[in-house]
Amino acid sequence: MSKFWNPLIKQLEPYVPGEQLDDPAIIKLNTNENPFPPSPKVLKAIQEESVKLQLYPSPTVDELREEIGSFFSLKKEQVFVGNGSDEVLAFSFMTFFEPGKTIKYPDITYSFYPAFAKLYQLDVEEVALEDDFSLPVEAFFQSEGGVIFPNPNAPSSLYVKIEAIEEILKNNPDQVVIIDEAYVDFAEASAVSLIDSYPNLLVVQTLSKSRSLAGLRVGLALGHPDLIEGLNRAKDSFNSYTMDRLAIVGAIEAFKDTAYFEKTKQEIIAVREYFRQELEKRNFYVLPSQTNFVLASPSDMEAEKLFTQLKQEGFLIRYFNQPKLENYVRISIGTQEQMSKLLDAIDRIIKK
Amino acid sequence: MSKFWNPLIKQLEPYVPGEQLDDPAIIKLNTNENPFPPSPKVLKAIQEESVKLQLYPSPTVDELREEIGSFFSLKKEQVFVGNGSDEVLAFSFMTFFEPGKTIKYPDITYSFYPAFAKLYQLDVEEVALEDDFSLPVEAFFQSEGGVIFPNPNAPSSLYVKIEAIEEILKNNPDQVVIIDEAYVDFAEASAVSLIDSYPNLLVVQTLSKSRSLAGLRVGLALGHPDLIEGLNRAKDSFNSYTMDRLAIVGAIEAFKDTAYFEKTKQEIIAVREYFRQELEKRNFYVLPSQTNFVLASPSDMEAEKLFTQLKQEGFLIRYFNQPKLENYVRISIGTQEQMSKLLDAIDRIIKK
Repeated sequence: MSKFWNPLIKQLEPYVPGEQLDDPAIIKLNTNENPFPPSPKVLKAIQEESVKLQLYPSPTVDELREEIGSFFSLKKEQVFVGNGSDEVLAFSFMTFFEPGKTIKYPDITYSFYPAFAKLYQLDVEEVALEDDFSLPVEAFFQSEGGVIFPNPNAPSSLYVKIEAIEEILKNNPDQVVIIDEAYVDFAEASAVSLIDSYPNLLVVQTLSKSRSLAGLRVGLALGHPDLIEGLNRAKDSFNSYTMDRLAIVGAIEAFKDTAYFEKTKQEIIAVREYFRQELEKRNFYVLPSQTNFVLASPSDMEAEKLFTQLKQEGFLIRYFNQPKLENYVRISIGTQEQMSKLLDAIDRIIKK
Repeated sequence: MSKFWNPLIKQLEPYVPGEQLDDPAIIKLNTNENPFPPSPKVLKAIQEESVKLQLYPSPTVDELREEIGSFFSLKKEQVFVGNGSDEVLAFSFMTFFEPGKTIKYPDITYSFYPAFAKLYQLDVEEVALEDDFSLPVEAFFQSEGGVIFPNPNAPSSLYVKIEAIEEILKNNPDQVVIIDEAYVDFAEASAVSLIDSYPNLLVVQTLSKSRSLAGLRVGLALGHPDLIEGLNRAKDSFNSYTMDRLAIVGAIEAFKDTAYFEKTKQEIIAVREYFRQELEKRNFYVLPSQTNFVLASPSDMEAEKLFTQLKQEGFLIRYFNQPKLENYVRISIGTQEQMSKLLDAIDRIIKK
């Protein structure tokens, strides 16, 4: 604490990200990164653009917003882009939620939401998930100040059907409902199809997972032009140039190269299903994931012990020391080879 | 206006950046960009790093903070980095200023400050500059909530001596004084030398001007570890990964390549002095700039007319349609060749 911090800063509870180690000897399956590099076209575009770095980027980022719009069959005015989906979420909380009007999100969810709530001094109702981690849809009806949840949820990996999301939208006509689709490319369908029918829907996505660009920091929001205009007002009062030139051209190519996107995505889904089956053979309870990770509970040992012993073997996975999750570990889906090696390590540990 | 915007967003007055055109036919001297490309070492580092973009960057950015610390003879704990100095300023306003305690900044200054003030709902005293645009130092003593000004100031281009800054620091012992040094590398000296003596001093700098990286978005703040910790609390409640991998490695190389930095900086200062003399020969009043731009007033024609006619000739400079600045234009310093061409165009326009 410092006398120079204002009261807002003193009461914050900042987010703590998963460990980011640059040690190539470790197999890193703890932050849901994509095991494949970005599309070669992304790398080429970045290299070509780098000679222009003395010039400011476009503050309105029209070219990227048009490319994303065209991918989703939306107009540029329905697309907001930012420095990772965390920043997009930060601007969304800033713009659509307000102190004194209670918002709702699940009790087990992305752990950045409580940090945003502290930052914007929001009142929150944490809606308890069912015992099987499924979302109690009706509990999100008639919110006072708005709704946010990830779909698929993290760390549960579970997906909520579009029909249920539509019910939540219908039952919050005067509040913004934010669907945080960080993992949606590994799932059944996006809520983007509802945008033209529901002016209160904001869909947030990221290029960090399915497009192999966690290191480039690009996120986006899709919704009614009024919502996008609100986000741009917030952005332009905070930082006009949130996206650098390399992020802009890299993201454009990532959306253009649909073949690479489809191929790597399908590979990850295939490895996920293989890995799930292998864990089940080893008596793990595995939630039916629609993401690029699994939440799994070992029957034959403590989850925390598994986490610790895998770390000693050179595998980094995630353990959440919090209620309802004590018996689970979250494991990102890597390559087939990485997951085979992980299974071998699990076998060695279980046999001990 | 949308019913979905909260009251905060409705009252904002967002910043409007200078025109960013990608037309290579235009000589762009309106946003104080560096006419030289980044160091070749920066480009090489970016290219090498791009193959790792599927992995998250470091959330604490230790390596870059150490490199910057070593450049300024400070510790890593005295260095904060962010996505351009605009974002660093946004976090600084968020952390050190508070509603109800009036802050002070000059009436003619960086036009993002009023946008930040609206965003954080701050009370502001806009201190009038003297008629010659110099800073009335004593008017910044005993602020209620803190002080911020650029040094050198923009768009005046004028520099305040370190001794005067020290007086302002002494006379605001319980408030944070932010010195926004976007242009300081073209000036006499930085206030960084005062950091170890004044725990209330925060110095903000950018890589956009003197290091040719406007397109990469890297800014920094230097100060007492308590101030830096406060900024990190704010950042980690908003966006843990504000800097992408390419920005981090590019910025490290930009600080390492001191030879390139010195050479390009000296060249710009030399061209500035040449250009000032040439303008004076043409009856312009030119403020004694310590930046990479000049604020100049033509005697023989209206400033706005000069701006408009230069635009027609393919030269983009900046005109501010606001009190005290009606008779001035702001011109960024480009290469010797660009400034010669600009002078030829000015000659043609004046003779008409």
